[in-house]
Amino acid sequence: MTSPFILINFKTYREGTGHSADRIARAAQAVMEDTGVEIGIAPSFTELRRMAKHYTIPVFAQHIDGVDAGAHTGRIPAYMLTMAGASGTLINHSERRLTLAEIEAGLAAAESAKLQTVICTNNIRATAGAAALGPSYVAIEPPELIGSGISVATADPGIIEGSVRAAEEKNPSVKVLAGAGIHSGKCVRIALDLGCTGVLLASGVVKADDPEAVLRDLVSRC
Amino acid sequence: MTSPFILINFKTYREGTGHSADRIARAAQAVMEDTGVEIGIAPSFTELRRMAKHYTIPVFAQHIDGVDAGAHTGRIPAYMLTMAGASGTLINHSERRLTLAEIEAGLAAAESAKLQTVICTNNIRATAGAAALGPSYVAIEPPELIGSGISVATADPGIIEGSVRAAEEKNPSVKVLAGAGIHSGKCVRIALDLGCTGVLLASGVVKADDPEAVLRDLVSRC
Amino acid sequence: MTSPFILINFKTYREGTGHSADRIARAAQAVMEDTGVEIGIAPSFTELRRMAKHYTIPVFAQHIDGVDAGAHTGRIPAYMLTMAGASGTLINHSERRLTLAEIEAGLAAAESAKLQTVICTNNIRATAGAAALGPSYVAIEPPELIGSGISVATADPGIIEGSVRAAEEKNPSVKVLAGAGIHSGKCVRIALDLGCTGVLLASGVVKADDPEAVLRDLVSRC
Amino acid sequence: MTSPFILINFKTYREGTGHSADRIARAAQAVMEDTGVEIGIAPSFTELRRMAKHYTIPVFAQHIDGVDAGAHTGRIPAYMLTMAGASGTLINHSERRLTLAEIEAGLAAAESAKLQTVICTNNIRATAGAAALGPSYVAIEPPELIGSGISVATADPGIIEGSVRAAEEKNPSVKVLAGAGIHSGKCVRIALDLGCTGVLLASGVVKADDPEAVLRDLVSRC
Repeated sequence: MTSPFILINFKTYREGTGHSADRIARAAQAVMEDTGVEIGIAPSFTELRRMAKHYTIPVFAQHIDGVDAGAHTGRIPAYMLTMAGASGTLINHSERRLTLAEIEAGLAAAESAKLQTVICTNNIRATAGAAALGPSYVAIEPPELIGSGISVATADPGIIEGSVRAAEEKNPSVKVLAGAGIHSGKCVRIALDLGCTGVLLASGVVKADDPEAVLRDLVSRC
Repeated sequence: MTSPFILINFKTYREGTGHSADRIARAAQAVMEDTGVEIGIAPSFTELRRMAKHYTIPVFAQHIDGVDAGAHTGRIPAYMLTMAGASGTLINHSERRLTLAEIEAGLAAAESAKLQTVICTNNIRATAGAAALGPSYVAIEPPELIGSGISVATADPGIIEGSVRAAEEKNPSVKVLAGAGIHSGKCVRIALDLGCTGVLLASGVVKADDPEAVLRDLVSRC
Repeated sequence: MTSPFILINFKTYREGTGHSADRIARAAQAVMEDTGVEIGIAPSFTELRRMAKHYTIPVFAQHIDGVDAGAHTGRIPAYMLTMAGASGTLINHSERRLTLAEIEAGLAAAESAKLQTVICTNNIRATAGAAALGPSYVAIEPPELIGSGISVATADPGIIEGSVRAAEEKNPSVKVLAGAGIHSGKCVRIALDLGCTGVLLASGVVKADDPEAVLRDLVSRC
Repeated sequence: MTSPFILINFKTYREGTGHSADRIARAAQAVMEDTGVEIGIAPSFTELRRMAKHYTIPVFAQHIDGVDAGAHTGRIPAYMLTMAGASGTLINHSERRLTLAEIEAGLAAAESAKLQTVICTNNIRATAGAAALGPSYVAIEPPELIGSGISVATADPGIIEGSVRAAEEKNPSVKVLAGAGIHSGKCVRIALDLGCTGVLLASGVVKADDPEAVLRDLVSRC
């Protein structure tokens, strides 16, 4: 059985930058070491190298561009991410949507660079499309619940179940993460029970007064 | 067995506008009536209503926006297309790429309005993703061959075969059109033999001196 | 002195389509004939030709693509607009934002086709940038007030004044329209008093129970 | 009189990454110290912090997003850039085009963070629009010459002259950089003689066998 995976997206929150980012990364590393539950972080591009250097947990990029090295000003090719120490990347987050062709190109580039891939989707049908592309993970995040504090696990378990089924049907090797409003061990437990491999979350940890306590709660029922 | 489908994209060619558009539409209608092979046209937005009113052949839009009626300046909602008489729409053409979320929204909107849907893709993997979304058709068009005069059917049969297989695997009810460089009955025959339901083409017909002759050749080996 | 200009954006409102669009266009034509105040309409692409054919008032497109005739599926080149009978076009509406390069290309294309141009902007500084490009009009529309029913003329006269001044400074031949929440003759009067040449509005007319009454009120204090 | 400014865009060239990036940065620093000509570099996001920490020359970002700290996955707010040690940023590079609203927002965000700003443009009219927004610099780069090895300074001095004039007219405090194909001290000299403050270049230095020699040549006639 696959070990659960908790992925923390730092977005561009101030609390996910500088010393505060270190505090979260340290907590994630401690909780991962104590419990064996895999916990990854997705810091901003400018902090990725620093985080990957100092911590042993998986460090993801928040976005990848499916372009080669070359004349691509302001873009993030796969080789930049591996040089910076990333082990994976988000693709098509709701705050950084991509065309189907860009998603496919980013995915192919990430794979060539041995990066794990998480394609974010907004509904069951989009999950089917994304899963058919064959990433490591699809993260289903109903946009209206992102950052709402209302957990997709309790507010809309049907979308999680449907996404797990759609991914299973289109590509059984693709794992599903539940996202949007996840904030407790109970949410994580529901997501796992519905067939997910883990969760993608952001403000629930990043903006918490005590990130380590939240992380310990999140993994408590894995 | 499904009847073959030839879809002619008028793009924004001058030869696909005004009197010249009528000439092509008339030819398509004559050839369809004579041979029974379904021939559709995709004129520009500003000519869609006029074409749909005057001809009995299927008229497609070149693009749809997955938005409702409302405050969406410059957008093309499904209801506009049906009001104008369209019976289907292209989605995600290589000259009008969309995000995965927009493709899914356009598809859902088109379906609610009973419009046929053709999602355009650029490679086998993208075809898998598009087919998993469940449109009426996926049109596979290697971008480097579009408008090249070099037929995908002869230059890259592998991409057609792979796309047909990918669509079959992800959603057997989705039909595949071959696009890019199609210009003769021989190209169409190869596409059909490789498992396609038809072809999507543009300049081969639109810029031809004698569009009717080209159309008659295109359907000659169906 | 320049005659005032009232431009009504039909967006994709159902009330701005079909018979309802005709009702508004007829009203606009009647009011323009009675009062001499210029009233233009911006219907959807699929209705543009029909409206331009039946009414003598200026008909604008909601968007233009700065591309030539050619391989531009789903795009709206200038020549399509003139063929359909348009006399002008919106550019960069807040619901259809464009890159600076696209705005400039659309503007140049529109000019070559003798189309009037209205670049929409969201604040004073963007107005300065847009005016420096030299369109016929800049329409200043604070995004937060669009469709709000709260008139920019009363809620934020400073942004109108600042925009008029910025346009004057960067290119004195560029006229300014005030947009967002405009709904009465009083709003129009304020806009004119602040130095605008007219207004750009949508729901205030399009969704009105009696569009003609609203139009008569709008021009009443010109 | 303003001191000349040479800005080297590392794009995503492999030669602008890792050890090779250090080699260029070291050379730039040495040449700047020896000659007093200001030389800046624009490395990738993932290397920005490292470069800013190790070198005393100005370090620019290749792009900025005009968003605040917050829920903006994969974006680059101004505060991230200042935290990483940047002293300025490119905006709207031809490989990373932005809407007018995004350019204006990025500019405002950069200014609040005391970052220098370079808006890239593609022709004289776009330069007028960009200059009216009031950045520190406008960099005029005819897209067809970027990376061509053909210098804008010799191939199209008219576009440089016209851009300098347009900027002067719309906002005299805005300085102009010439870009595209710049590769020698002669190009730089022509640009300065035409009224530019400096140049923006990439492959000419980044892909050179001996970047320091190229840099010394570039500043030789300043």
